[in-house]
Amino acid sequence: MAFYMIGERINGMFKDIGEAVAKFDPKPIQEWAIKQTEAGAAYLDVNVGPTAADRVKSMRWMVEVIQEVCDTPLALDSTNYDAIEAGLEICKKPALINSCPCERPKIERVFPMAKKYGAKIIALTMDKSGIPKSADARVAFAMELVAAADEFGLSPDDLFIDPLILPCNVAQDHAPEVLEALRQIRTLSDPPPHTTLGLSNVSQGTPFRPLINRTYCVMAMTCGLDSAIMDVNDDELVDAIATAEVLLNQSIYCDSYAKVFRQR
Amino acid sequence: MAFYMIGERINGMFKDIGEAVAKFDPKPIQEWAIKQTEAGAAYLDVNVGPTAADRVKSMRWMVEVIQEVCDTPLALDSTNYDAIEAGLEICKKPALINSCPCERPKIERVFPMAKKYGAKIIALTMDKSGIPKSADARVAFAMELVAAADEFGLSPDDLFIDPLILPCNVAQDHAPEVLEALRQIRTLSDPPPHTTLGLSNVSQGTPFRPLINRTYCVMAMTCGLDSAIMDVNDDELVDAIATAEVLLNQSIYCDSYAKVFRQR
Repeated sequence: MAFYMIGERINGMFKDIGEAVAKFDPKPIQEWAIKQTEAGAAYLDVNVGPTAADRVKSMRWMVEVIQEVCDTPLALDSTNYDAIEAGLEICKKPALINSCPCERPKIERVFPMAKKYGAKIIALTMDKSGIPKSADARVAFAMELVAAADEFGLSPDDLFIDPLILPCNVAQDHAPEVLEALRQIRTLSDPPPHTTLGLSNVSQGTPFRPLINRTYCVMAMTCGLDSAIMDVNDDELVDAIATAEVLLNQSIYCDSYAKVFRQR
Repeated sequence: MAFYMIGERINGMFKDIGEAVAKFDPKPIQEWAIKQTEAGAAYLDVNVGPTAADRVKSMRWMVEVIQEVCDTPLALDSTNYDAIEAGLEICKKPALINSCPCERPKIERVFPMAKKYGAKIIALTMDKSGIPKSADARVAFAMELVAAADEFGLSPDDLFIDPLILPCNVAQDHAPEVLEALRQIRTLSDPPPHTTLGLSNVSQGTPFRPLINRTYCVMAMTCGLDSAIMDVNDDELVDAIATAEVLLNQSIYCDSYAKVFRQR
């Protein structure tokens, strides 16, 4: 098992990217594409942000300008599935669709689209009524999502199930539930689905964001987490992930293991 | 559940302490007693080291000089049980006996001594044939130790079971086995036994000792570890432990949680 780091930075919610999208200025987007790729990102998340006038057009343009400078696979991040499809049409490498909740109409739109384009899916353990608190309810959604993958001709391996971590300063009791959900999701199928988290959420609004992010990431990896949407340029976080992989005996110890991890 | 940090530093294997024991110079010992107490140590490990001429006399003297400057409970660390008993006789607070392997003659010497002095025991998942590799074999020893506690009138809560982590650069495959053992040991009894690790062992001989120590500690806490013999003056390690406690929902989040952790 290798850990997939998904670079979170090309998102219109960040001011520099939001402005770049508005002005169709490729430079900040391309710089972050290179910077995150060099840090070891397996995927680059691409989100046009809340202010884009035409999300379909903006998504296609972002995919184009990123692919001009690197060939890192992309995680197309939008609630507008036409925007995602516009990106999928031109992606050179198999992409990740970010994301699909456990709601039937959305599953029926997203899963066949993943099949058509050879994409994988970040699938959320929630429905219209929101994010459940208990591990059990999260796992129940994960089971539905794994069954849906089978229904639409996808493998569990095509799913990155996200049990949805919330900020620990407002929803502290969710944190251990998400860990237990991760532990159980691994056992749902063979091969198991991948799991992922929007890692930076856990520390939202706290004064110790990097400490909380890297600590929770290591905890989640101990429970089977094999990917995260994260700040791949946080060196201490990346070092913690490389170390956890060694200590889980998933990559071989050598004195340069941290360096090897970034370069793979 | 609160995490018990056991300060590792008053050990004759460290040069300054070894010399202090040889010369009966209390100063370095007392300085480390205060320094580790201030960092939040719940227990101070006390080991006369390999060079002490008379381990019984040295242990008694060390306990005396430490108790002159602080009232932190002590973990009396020796393979010489007469030395441990000499320390227990004068300990003002209930102590920890470090350690007893899963060997019948030693259990018969140590467990009644713990009962007599109201001490708890660090009990090792090994016997004369050494440290087993698999989680299952470690857990089998833990079961024997819990049964022995019952036999000698002790509670499982009086045991700190140590599943014995080895350096990850020479015995990497042990690291996940110890995690799985920790997970299972929690389920052996109600109340469960405590668990502990000689944390610094995991990084012995590697160039990134603090990174590996704190990463493994967080992983082990995720599996139920509630104590460690450790460098309590490694601030980043202590911060990681405080953060893991919050993220396990074992202590309440507040913006000053790391400070609160040290002062409790």
